[in-house]
Parts: sequence; C-alpha cells; structure tokens
Amino acid sequence: MIKAILFDVDNTLIDFMKMKRKSCEAAVEAMISAGLKMKKEDAMKEIYIIYDKKGMEYKAVFEKIIKKSNGKIDYRIMASGVLAYRSVKEEQVIPYEGVMLTLKVLKKKYKLVVVSDAPAMKAWTRLIMAKLDGYFDLVLTKSDVKKQKTSTVPFNSTLKYLKIKPEEALMVGDRIERDIQTPKKLGIKTCFARYGVEDSKKPAIGRSGADFEINEFKELIDVLKKI
Amino acid sequence: MIKAILFDVDNTLIDFMKMKRKSCEAAVEAMISAGLKMKKEDAMKEIYIIYDKKGMEYKAVFEKIIKKSNGKIDYRIMASGVLAYRSVKEEQVIPYEGVMLTLKVLKKKYKLVVVSDAPAMKAWTRLIMAKLDGYFDLVLTKSDVKKQKTSTVPFNSTLKYLKIKPEEALMVGDRIERDIQTPKKLGIKTCFARYGVEDSKKPAIGRSGADFEINEFKELIDVLKKI
Repeated sequence: MIKAILFDVDNTLIDFMKMKRKSCEAAVEAMISAGLKMKKEDAMKEIYIIYDKKGMEYKAVFEKIIKKSNGKIDYRIMASGVLAYRSVKEEQVIPYEGVMLTLKVLKKKYKLVVVSDAPAMKAWTRLIMAKLDGYFDLVLTKSDVKKQKTSTVPFNSTLKYLKIKPEEALMVGDRIERDIQTPKKLGIKTCFARYGVEDSKKPAIGRSGADFEINEFKELIDVLKKI
Repeated sequence: MIKAILFDVDNTLIDFMKMKRKSCEAAVEAMISAGLKMKKEDAMKEIYIIYDKKGMEYKAVFEKIIKKSNGKIDYRIMASGVLAYRSVKEEQVIPYEGVMLTLKVLKKKYKLVVVSDAPAMKAWTRLIMAKLDGYFDLVLTKSDVKKQKTSTVPFNSTLKYLKIKPEEALMVGDRIERDIQTPKKLGIKTCFARYGVEDSKKPAIGRSGADFEINEFKELIDVLKKI
C-alpha cells in the first residue's frame, strides 16, 4: 500500500519550460528596445541553441547573444534583459493544470514529499512563487542531503524520515535517469510525467521504464487506484 | 568652466537607505508569516546591527536572523523573506526628489557621468529600475576600470574619455573618502550630497571637505551657477 508520494519540481509540478520561454521572450524584447541588433526570433533560436549545449540554467546566455550581435558586451542591454526576465519569471512560475487540486485530494490520504536536485533556496522560492509550499510534509533538496538523484541517497533519506518501506512510496518525475531509474533500484514505485518532456525528447509510450506513465497531472489519482 | 558632472549612484541619485529599509520590512513580515519567531521591530533592529557590522550588501542577514530566533536554518522562511525583499526592492529603487527634473536641466549644458564602485550589472539594473538609464553620456563602473573610487583611476579614466581637464569636472557624492577626497587629489571640483548620509553619521555643515554641499539634489543647479 502506498503511503507517500514523492515529486520532482521542475517540469513535474511546475511548468519550467513555459516559464523559461516566456521569460526569455520578455528579455529579448527588452534587449532589442535597449539596442540589441537582432530579430526576436533569431535571438530566441540562438538562446535555445546555447541552452541545449550548456544546460537550461546557464547564466551567461544573454551576454553571449549581445556579444554575437553587437560585437561587445553592453551592460545596459544586458541589465534590461535580466530585469525583464526576472519580472516575467516571477509571474510565470506556475503549476501545471490540475496540480493544486490533485495535491489537495492526495494530501488527505498520503504523505507528500518533494525530492529535488535544486539547491534549497531555489526549490523553496519556486514552490512559494507557485503557491505550492503548503502541500508538503517534507521538502528534500541537494542542500539537505548533498547528493543528487543520480544517487539513491535522497530517496533513502526520504524513506528513513517517513519510516516507510520502498514499496510504500511512489516517485513522480520527468527525468528518466534521476526520477525513474534511481528510485527503481531501491524498489520504489515510479510514475513518469510524460507531459514534462519536450515532444522531440519524449520516449515512446510505455518505454520510460516507469511502472506508470501520465499525460496529465490529475491522472495520478487513477494511477493510485491501480496500486 | 564646468563641462561634466560626475555622480555616484547609491545615496546620491537613488535613495538606497529607504529602499533597503522598506525591502527589509517586507521580508521580515513575510518571514514572520512563514514562521519566524521574532517581533517585527526586534528583527529590524537585529538586521541593522548585522548590516552595521558586515556592510549593507551582506547577503546572509536573513539566515542569521532565522538561526537566532528559530535555532536552525529554515529554507521556507528564508525563501519567503528573499522573495518579499526582491519584490519590494523592484518598486523601491527610486531617485531622490528632484533628481529626474534636475538631470533633464543639467543635460542640456553638461556631460553627465556615473562613476560607481558597484559592478556594472548592479549599477545598470539600479539605473534602469529608477528610470535614470537614459540620462548619462558615460556610466563607469568597477567592472570597466577594475578599480574603486579609493583610487584615482576611475576619475582619470572619465577625464580621459571626455577629453576634459580636472577643473572642468564636478563630482557629486555622499561618501567623503571616495567621492570627495579622491577626486580632489586630481583637482576635480566636489559637491557633498549631505542628504545621502544618515543623521547619526553626517559631518557638521561645511566639514565634509568638499567645495560645495547640498541638502537637496536640486540645489545642484545653484551650485553650478557659483562655479
């Protein structure tokens, strides 16, 4: 019997990709107003090429764009971009459809836990901005356990804290290696958040390796009826 | 004849102390709501004791407060404080009364320059937030010259860039050592922004060592008539 549900944050509870795209669009528009010599769609393409290479949290992305288009760094343009990015980001850290209502239902019956590879402050600021900070019995981050989900440590710590067995926990996440493969090693049940993965990177249906797959967050309620 | 006016940013163009106080108040209120076991006025007192010791840009101030009151770090409380701080700060980076109008008048006759010890991104984000970024012919920061205003380098760079003599420049600022004493060494005229200094730290009238002193930003126009 499942006693606890463990969740990843980005692209599982929160629509991180949408937040990122909207924030970057606002940044590009502000930078063009401040003198960036580039068309909006070209700048967006460049940004995503850089993110693909360097990861989605890569900080110097605007600096690279400005140097490429204007030949040198221009701090006024960069600061305009960063301010616009931050301001839109604050509004755009929002849960996927159905997340709040589903968590409310699940909270009545299960312990709810966040297991995140983000540093504690980043995980918590995102949960608070998305108004999800009140739903969890435990928020376990990289800052707490010093290990990421490529290791079994965060999952073992969670089981220990909740005093439950692996088969009494269900992990929900969008990253196969970290959210599915690692907890599976311990015997934790797993559910793949298909909706959190870009179309071009989605595995074929049923090929995630998880015990369950969902296309919308609210399907979790049906998954739990099956276990 | 004066050809250029050089400005410090924090506590000269922008009311940094007010921004700081309002942002900290919002942070303390948010942290109390999230579980900080401390009264608002006690927390504010503690924060300013820490700032006095560690400097106004000290990052770990909320962490210290939380540890002191609750016995250990609580990331939910801290993230609540940081989010409230940031959100109020964005609204509260505002120029002193009369700054915009005065700069508009001065811009017709003089080159206007920012000489700041802040890193470029910090200086520019503050200028943009305060809507002052369009007034300056040059914004010179620590990132540009790698030296702070305790050195004559930022001032010499400014004179060189503008191709003017020291006596053709007037520096306006609130920090006696950096904004008055250093430029004076080169023969630059100086004006002390008395309004930018806390009452408890203000020198007696006429004792700043500057050629001029102003109690309000707009008095700068009269100062320039005297030179």
